Amino acid sequence: MSTSTAKISSFTIHDVRFPTSLSGDGTDAMNTECDYSSAYIVLHTEPPLKDDSGRVLEGHGMTFTIGRGNDIVCAAIRTLADRLLVGRDTEELFSDMGKTYYLLTGDPQLRWIGPEKGVIALATAACINALFDLFAKTRNKPLWKLITDMKPEELVKLIPFKYIDDFITPQEALDWLREKEGNKKRREERVKEIGYPAYTTSVGWLGYSDEKVVRLTKEAIRDGFTHFKLKVGSDPESDKTRIGLVKSVISDPRNFPENYVKPDPSTTRGKNADPNTGCVLMVDANQVWSVNQAIDYMREHIVPLSPWFIEEPTAPDDVLGHATIRRALKAGTPVVGVASGEHAHNRMLFKQMLQSGSLDVVQIDACRMGGLNEVLAVLLMAAKAGVPVCPHAGGVGLCELVVHLSLIDFLAVSGPSILESETGGLRIPNVLEYVDHLHEHFVYPVEISERGTYEVGRRDESRAESVEVPRDAGCGYSCQMKEESFGVYDWPEGSYWKSQR
Amino acid sequence: MSTSTAKISSFTIHDVRFPTSLSGDGTDAMNTECDYSSAYIVLHTEPPLKDDSGRVLEGHGMTFTIGRGNDIVCAAIRTLADRLLVGRDTEELFSDMGKTYYLLTGDPQLRWIGPEKGVIALATAACINALFDLFAKTRNKPLWKLITDMKPEELVKLIPFKYIDDFITPQEALDWLREKEGNKKRREERVKEIGYPAYTTSVGWLGYSDEKVVRLTKEAIRDGFTHFKLKVGSDPESDKTRIGLVKSVISDPRNFPENYVKPDPSTTRGKNADPNTGCVLMVDANQVWSVNQAIDYMREHIVPLSPWFIEEPTAPDDVLGHATIRRALKAGTPVVGVASGEHAHNRMLFKQMLQSGSLDVVQIDACRMGGLNEVLAVLLMAAKAGVPVCPHAGGVGLCELVVHLSLIDFLAVSGPSILESETGGLRIPNVLEYVDHLHEHFVYPVEISERGTYEVGRRDESRAESVEVPRDAGCGYSCQMKEESFGVYDWPEGSYWKSQR
Repeated sequence: MSTSTAKISSFTIHDVRFPTSLSGDGTDAMNTECDYSSAYIVLHTEPPLKDDSGRVLEGHGMTFTIGRGNDIVCAAIRTLADRLLVGRDTEELFSDMGKTYYLLTGDPQLRWIGPEKGVIALATAACINALFDLFAKTRNKPLWKLITDMKPEELVKLIPFKYIDDFITPQEALDWLREKEGNKKRREERVKEIGYPAYTTSVGWLGYSDEKVVRLTKEAIRDGFTHFKLKVGSDPESDKTRIGLVKSVISDPRNFPENYVKPDPSTTRGKNADPNTGCVLMVDANQVWSVNQAIDYMREHIVPLSPWFIEEPTAPDDVLGHATIRRALKAGTPVVGVASGEHAHNRMLFKQMLQSGSLDVVQIDACRMGGLNEVLAVLLMAAKAGVPVCPHAGGVGLCELVVHLSLIDFLAVSGPSILESETGGLRIPNVLEYVDHLHEHFVYPVEISERGTYEVGRRDESRAESVEVPRDAGCGYSCQMKEESFGVYDWPEGSYWKSQR
Repeated sequence: MSTSTAKISSFTIHDVRFPTSLSGDGTDAMNTECDYSSAYIVLHTEPPLKDDSGRVLEGHGMTFTIGRGNDIVCAAIRTLADRLLVGRDTEELFSDMGKTYYLLTGDPQLRWIGPEKGVIALATAACINALFDLFAKTRNKPLWKLITDMKPEELVKLIPFKYIDDFITPQEALDWLREKEGNKKRREERVKEIGYPAYTTSVGWLGYSDEKVVRLTKEAIRDGFTHFKLKVGSDPESDKTRIGLVKSVISDPRNFPENYVKPDPSTTRGKNADPNTGCVLMVDANQVWSVNQAIDYMREHIVPLSPWFIEEPTAPDDVLGHATIRRALKAGTPVVGVASGEHAHNRMLFKQMLQSGSLDVVQIDACRMGGLNEVLAVLLMAAKAGVPVCPHAGGVGLCELVVHLSLIDFLAVSGPSILESETGGLRIPNVLEYVDHLHEHFVYPVEISERGTYEVGRRDESRAESVEVPRDAGCGYSCQMKEESFGVYDWPEGSYWKSQR
């Protein structure tokens, strides 16, 4: 149907900004005022590509920022799309998306202002995301399904091995992917049944009052969550109070429903789990410390509270610094892990993080690096290193995007061969961040089950009811925003921003 | 005179692009078509600051790109200046430029699209450069003199120790700077007498014919150069031919003037120098290789030609990769060093390069990191690690900028306590890149002496003759471009670009 010949004829850019700074959502020790924003592109084709029902298919892609500077990223997206995408044949691009990645990152002049980092990488991600979105839509599949249905030989071709083949070669990657083919189907069935495990970051933004934190934690427990992440690093006393509050709520069985099932204790964070309820805390410093500061602050104030990991303890580029912090925390009791990656700017940085044993948890972002191709490279390197991947999703649209990445990881890359744990729970070793902001702006929003998991493919059945907006199967990469949201939140001419002037 | 109260009232942005791709200047294995460009800002004050002669002083700052994308950097400069500089008191900014650095890099929303890397770092550099330019001009000093006249206590305050104090602490830096005070005056006198050593990259761009390379090498010898850098990595045969050509020219004493003095053999590159003439070759791969490719290519094709170093053998972010390559080359004969840094995006990357012993030569860029403050941090870290700094100057305006950095390095940071070598030459251990393009567009262009050195402060004497354009003393950071150059090369409305349409 939609694999017919078409060319990318034009594109539309949206500089979308939500006034989240008003509510304190998204505040942490580094990011004290955030207007969650999206630098957004829609790719149009000529002739228009259509699905079976005649709906016109467009490629929607975005990257996430926190406000000012979103226009700079939009300018970079415009330049990339204008120079490198307009006029190209979609099927030719789709037939070798590995080559397409090099096309988008290989313009010598534009490469200079990165290379492969910062604004130009964020812009590359939006373009690549848009292409993969259209690619998946033309195949009437969610992105995760498009990728996991590929043969290992096809999937490996998506990966840019340039600069990382001293850590993993194409042949190693291929062998790895082939081995994971075994019970892929079974894994897909199971994850559709019970969903993909989520953790919540929404209970403890620094801008929230103590009362709000307690209330939100209790609500999160009722919503099925067992993993909770808190922001730290602005003030030791406030950190201890806040973590203490959350700990007291999540360790009290009276706050849990009667049919509550403790999380699988055999996961890597079992040792840091609450002995009563099995719940797990994580903390996030958002880069506020120098290396030695991080070690001192953690030892004195945070380690005794036994979180699973400290996220972004220092500068995101500091491979050796993370390794030093991790060694220091490994030497303490209880052992606290180190997580990072939402600001890790490319596959070369992750390669080194894994080569030097800097991380207990790899936190990829769907938009920080140059899009899906680089993410796949990191998934494979993390799998080879035996480090779990728990993507970053705190922002607008990121949950919608990263659930695809976690599913690709679980189904095709790192999924275990044994699926059920001894206690009967599903053994999905990783856990995906969830924040409950701004999903209403998306055509295919994520949904969380009563088990605190991301719903997967549950809405296929309802498709017949709603041909105009096919659920799930037609979702592509799921970041398509509603037209009316553009009308309100496009900056500076959307109706919300106009009304503020 | 000019330390009077004024506020930054407005600024002008110039997107300047020179059509260097037409001549093949600046071509290498990665950057196959370069239009040398400058993302440029001029800071204006109210009331206008003036020098003794009544000339209005402005702060000129720029960063270097190679064409497309220069507008994106200009957009980022505009945002930074508009939000963080306009309305501020100049003397307040100058009184604590360390704090000013954190002001310019600390906006939480703009930080997100870096952090401290890529477009936003390039833009930060332009803004910081402009401020330091104005600061120096108000003191009627070249930037290098402004900085090296500071007491160690003042200089150390300029340095952002955040994220690097696990490698060097403020106290260590202070102690280091105090120790270098000793013969600073004597070093200044000497470097004014004989200039700062330069090497040339202008003989061997990949876009040049063999005949042109030979002719330019002979000319460079007559101009006093003894160090020559060639681009490699596009094709082994062409590399060998090209290097062979240059080697045959520089090893033949007949090509040298009668009064030729061989360079000091006691420098780090002495072992790689030509036994006949003492001349030194360097090669530059501009990131074309993966780690293992770099090792294999070097061993097979380049090491036998005995260059002093290979520059940018792989991805600029790959600290561990550079360390691996360096170890491999150290194990060979002759030993070839590893150099990198023109794309090193911040002080945290350089910290790790030095911590892991990845480099024989540190190549800072004046505009790639967030301006002078970060450069000073790197100078100190490199001095502590005992690694020489040879800044990157291939581009437009970079020679004008980096000579200040090399002088600061030599006079205040890494200068040796013994100045004369046994053979009578000046023992300035480092050597600064020089390319002979586009200097005519600058109000205070660098000049090369007949000894192949950068002239330093030689033009002070002529100042009385030309009050309108005071030579040297009023040059600030030397990147002030001529108004008429903006008129011709501003993109897309300058007269050159208009005439091309």
